Amino acid sequence: MKTIQKLLIESLGRDKVLIGDELANRYHHIWRMSESLNAVALIMPTSTDEVSKILKICHEHNQPVIAFGGLTNLVGGTETTGNEVIISTEKLNQIEEVDPMSRTITVQSGVILEEVQQEAAKHDLLFPLNFGAKGTARIGGVIASNAGGLRVFRYGMTRSLVLGVEAVLADGTIISSMKKIIKDNSAYDLKQLFVGSEGTLGVITKAVLKLVEAPKSRASAFVAMNEFDQVVSFLKHMDGGLGGILSGYELMWDNYYTLATTAPALSKPPIPQGYKYYVLIEALGSDLEKDKARIEALAEEAFTKGIIEEAVFANTHADLDWFWKIREDVHAVVSQMKHDQHFDISLPIPLIGNMVDDMLSKLHSLEGVGKVISFGHIADGNIHFVVEKEHLRKQLTEAINDIIYGPLMEVGGSVSAEHGIGLHKKAYLKLCRTEAEIGLMKQIKKTMDPKGILNPGKVF
Amino acid sequence: MKTIQKLLIESLGRDKVLIGDELANRYHHIWRMSESLNAVALIMPTSTDEVSKILKICHEHNQPVIAFGGLTNLVGGTETTGNEVIISTEKLNQIEEVDPMSRTITVQSGVILEEVQQEAAKHDLLFPLNFGAKGTARIGGVIASNAGGLRVFRYGMTRSLVLGVEAVLADGTIISSMKKIIKDNSAYDLKQLFVGSEGTLGVITKAVLKLVEAPKSRASAFVAMNEFDQVVSFLKHMDGGLGGILSGYELMWDNYYTLATTAPALSKPPIPQGYKYYVLIEALGSDLEKDKARIEALAEEAFTKGIIEEAVFANTHADLDWFWKIREDVHAVVSQMKHDQHFDISLPIPLIGNMVDDMLSKLHSLEGVGKVISFGHIADGNIHFVVEKEHLRKQLTEAINDIIYGPLMEVGGSVSAEHGIGLHKKAYLKLCRTEAEIGLMKQIKKTMDPKGILNPGKVF
Repeated sequence: MKTIQKLLIESLGRDKVLIGDELANRYHHIWRMSESLNAVALIMPTSTDEVSKILKICHEHNQPVIAFGGLTNLVGGTETTGNEVIISTEKLNQIEEVDPMSRTITVQSGVILEEVQQEAAKHDLLFPLNFGAKGTARIGGVIASNAGGLRVFRYGMTRSLVLGVEAVLADGTIISSMKKIIKDNSAYDLKQLFVGSEGTLGVITKAVLKLVEAPKSRASAFVAMNEFDQVVSFLKHMDGGLGGILSGYELMWDNYYTLATTAPALSKPPIPQGYKYYVLIEALGSDLEKDKARIEALAEEAFTKGIIEEAVFANTHADLDWFWKIREDVHAVVSQMKHDQHFDISLPIPLIGNMVDDMLSKLHSLEGVGKVISFGHIADGNIHFVVEKEHLRKQLTEAINDIIYGPLMEVGGSVSAEHGIGLHKKAYLKLCRTEAEIGLMKQIKKTMDPKGILNPGKVF
Repeated sequence: MKTIQKLLIESLGRDKVLIGDELANRYHHIWRMSESLNAVALIMPTSTDEVSKILKICHEHNQPVIAFGGLTNLVGGTETTGNEVIISTEKLNQIEEVDPMSRTITVQSGVILEEVQQEAAKHDLLFPLNFGAKGTARIGGVIASNAGGLRVFRYGMTRSLVLGVEAVLADGTIISSMKKIIKDNSAYDLKQLFVGSEGTLGVITKAVLKLVEAPKSRASAFVAMNEFDQVVSFLKHMDGGLGGILSGYELMWDNYYTLATTAPALSKPPIPQGYKYYVLIEALGSDLEKDKARIEALAEEAFTKGIIEEAVFANTHADLDWFWKIREDVHAVVSQMKHDQHFDISLPIPLIGNMVDDMLSKLHSLEGVGKVISFGHIADGNIHFVVEKEHLRKQLTEAINDIIYGPLMEVGGSVSAEHGIGLHKKAYLKLCRTEAEIGLMKQIKKTMDPKGILNPGKVF
């Protein structure tokens, strides 16, 4: 047994440390469950103090450490090389308190996102963060990756929903600021450093999250347009006209909508195929009938003004499920692809129409590219692409990357709107950050983790 | 002439550098216009490159630097000792662009907050940040102090409204990320470091700010309660019931309301004096008549349930002005005080009622304390106190500080909700931040400003 394994077992107890064969049923990503975890040890602490103990030992021995949450990250953020000690947050799984008057929930970092949503709902409150992996993603990872999702437009990214954080620095120092307060200008807001740091600046052990009053109504509509200007005009029209209750504005290009509403996909098209753009809107408000009437009146006005070509409205729960299934079931479309390459970029909203047209036409002119789908959280300027490839040759992958990432620097876009950098996007970071920015980031990393033991090799 | 003065004049030109007698009409705070500025030089750069040149020279010569915006800070954040070079942002005053489709405005840091509001309004957009000093405060200072104000509850602090920042580090390095995009998880979000850093980590020269569609209606109501539980219940009742359009929830204790609605103050009381709590609400929505009807229906329901004692509604623009004048004209009340001591604390919302009762009773038992007023942005947990003192003896000042700051650490409050730390609150920072937190803040400061030339002596 290695020294570090002995020290960790001595300090934490045999039952909290997995080594050797005990790692056989463990994995580094939920899509790779069949590959055994390659690591020095996996530890399951139950308290911040235990995380601090682990990090003190690892720091002293220059031992690399990776924190594991729900392992749903899409950029290789939790990949191991075999030399790492893993801190799994799976037993840091206590919901410590819901405070309905402060509208906060206090949780350990291993609590699953969906459990937070469910616990909030019991108190007639909403934790607005919502995305596909909610049933698996743990709050520590959600914060470390500043997760986004479907309602960012109204409620913000994870960063906007975190009031307090407890985290452990590389050397074991505990930085605890578990306040329930919304406003705190008492010097630097240190929690901002941990949000979106992808496990490279500290290990998050607890958080106070902000809740909002549960909306009393949820209304949706599907509309179709042929010009991108219409997409932006309709966003402004609905957002202004609904006076603050618009919560989702999801765009699907025809390439996505057609596949998602044609067999083998299971959904039927609520609006005929053949338009260029399809937008799914959501409003979370206080009075379903009034909200629906308002949406219909606004859509009719937009139709009269030529801003939209066609609209349908969700009248029942079944309609809501039907409409949202089309947007959320990306898997049904991607599973038809031979090989797929994913993108998650940000662009300034007015430029999206022409730039995506250009990207799509360039992608389709590449030999070896099959289907391409594009869709996204358009009110946030966030577009996802999935590109089908006939083969996995490096040259093709790079040609695709060049088409999508190439124009970003000039227009002030981002190679990662919400997924992060991790391992897979490291090479492209310089396409949307200046040398001076990356230099300062590395200085911050060096200050907080001088030995570079936290998630080494990720981000930079 | 000092070497540093010569170098700055050589580099920037004689007309951009004020020295010696030229500082006689300059000052360090808008409330101290009669006191001449005590500084080595005041420089008025017009570009980020010029700010970089100034800082390179100052860095090389270990020359302390303070950035001046509108000089409205309330914690001594711009006080000088005479040894500092001042970078005034007054000529960094260009609004570079409004992009109505991206809903962003791009400005140099010397642009005044009210100009941003007005420019946005021309495009049917709203910059939601709003506070008393809007006609004087400049955006650089607004960002450096993470200003709050009257609509934080709905739209967030300044931090939530800044999409891009250009800033210059102590050594002259330019950190520029002037993106218009809402989502950007491409590694660490460096702008968070500058927001709220009070000029100690860099000098902000430009920003991209987020705008929202201008609301089409503004409705207000005044209500009265006698129990703090009613105050919180009514907040939840209205926030849930209005489905997202509630934008203000301002609490005034009877101590404030009575003074603000009695001569020599000019406003009449919209609700009789004599209740314990008065709440002024604001809803920014899309349809004035429907919003008003909804507010009245919800208030009636609250009255029937015993959540409020009395309510009045703004029916005209004159009513809106009347109601808000009572809340905003703190000056009319404070000007009656002999000497005044101001506080800006945060508390967890459910604890506010009892804790403020306790603080008020302790303050009134101190000899030398006159009137005390308390009011605040209660949906944010932010309470302002102004305490009248008969004299300026240090012992009394400290006794008052002890009463208000003493209980904060235990309950997870803050000595500064929105004003910052600056010079005046340095001694109290340890009452709401741990030693480990302050240690990490100092490490960040040391990393970004190793010679300690930026606003030295402030915050820590």
